[in-house]
Amino acid sequence: MRVLGVDPGLTHCGVGIVEGEIGKPISLVEVGVILTPTESPLEQRLLDLDQQLSEWVNLWKPDVVAVERVFSQHNVRTVMGTGQAAGIALLIAAKAGIPVMMHTPSEVKASVTGSGRANKAQVATMVQNILRLESIPKPVDATDALALAICHIWRGGGNTKIANALAAEQSRLKKLRAR
Amino acid sequence: MRVLGVDPGLTHCGVGIVEGEIGKPISLVEVGVILTPTESPLEQRLLDLDQQLSEWVNLWKPDVVAVERVFSQHNVRTVMGTGQAAGIALLIAAKAGIPVMMHTPSEVKASVTGSGRANKAQVATMVQNILRLESIPKPVDATDALALAICHIWRGGGNTKIANALAAEQSRLKKLRAR
Repeated sequence: MRVLGVDPGLTHCGVGIVEGEIGKPISLVEVGVILTPTESPLEQRLLDLDQQLSEWVNLWKPDVVAVERVFSQHNVRTVMGTGQAAGIALLIAAKAGIPVMMHTPSEVKASVTGSGRANKAQVATMVQNILRLESIPKPVDATDALALAICHIWRGGGNTKIANALAAEQSRLKKLRAR
Repeated sequence: MRVLGVDPGLTHCGVGIVEGEIGKPISLVEVGVILTPTESPLEQRLLDLDQQLSEWVNLWKPDVVAVERVFSQHNVRTVMGTGQAAGIALLIAAKAGIPVMMHTPSEVKASVTGSGRANKAQVATMVQNILRLESIPKPVDATDALALAICHIWRGGGNTKIANALAAEQSRLKKLRAR
């Protein structure tokens, strides 16, 4: 299973692709960060992100996209950009018919370090260990994206398809009943 | 000038199109609400909204898209859906090369009622008066979208193109300098 992890953000959007299955070694496929210029108008930044992230999806054809679930943050302006970036990642996956799964930061931390309250450095070290890398990928958004993708595999990503199929069926039935 | 106003939301996204210029009567072109089923997965709802809103843009070919600027709201879950819906509206406009402008709720209220703290009913009544409608369009998301579009014309929407052109030029120069 090839998983694209997305650590959403407008200024820095971490993207990491890994390949593997539960109980087998996980390998790094590609990792990077998508940047959009802070001085551009918001719609231009969203378009930039959409185009670059679409290229990742088209090029690497992931089986699933794992996106960080954004919760409360102190700064409304920041949370908005993060949420919009996450929305674009979800939209791209939905358009391509690729199943999506969201994981919270603490789920990701717990998956790769064993503790939901691990710090960034611990997560980065574990990403390096799990993927058997010579150094820690930089910047932190990149390792976070890889941690997300690893978390997805270890939490049993196979359930995504079942969950999505169930949700689609429920939506279809509801629409039928509404007629 | 034909303006598409978008009152962003995942459950109810208000859309309203008006035509007019400063100093001339403004006319209603079309108004409606895009709904996405609450029981669908988030990515499916974003895709639904993207497809339906794209149809509005393709069909009515607005000269400009006015989107409500989302600020603080109490509920993080709500603000996230609103922000993501706004992001999709901005992305659709940017893809189509249509200029975008964002207006805050108080700017909209001040434009159509003279008071930035007007209530929903006042705004709805003024939308009805300004557009010379026999009744108030329902639901409230629809009138809010029309108020946004009216606000855009009355605030002098012509500045949008200049602002966008300036921003694009600044971004281009910065990229050149970075080479």
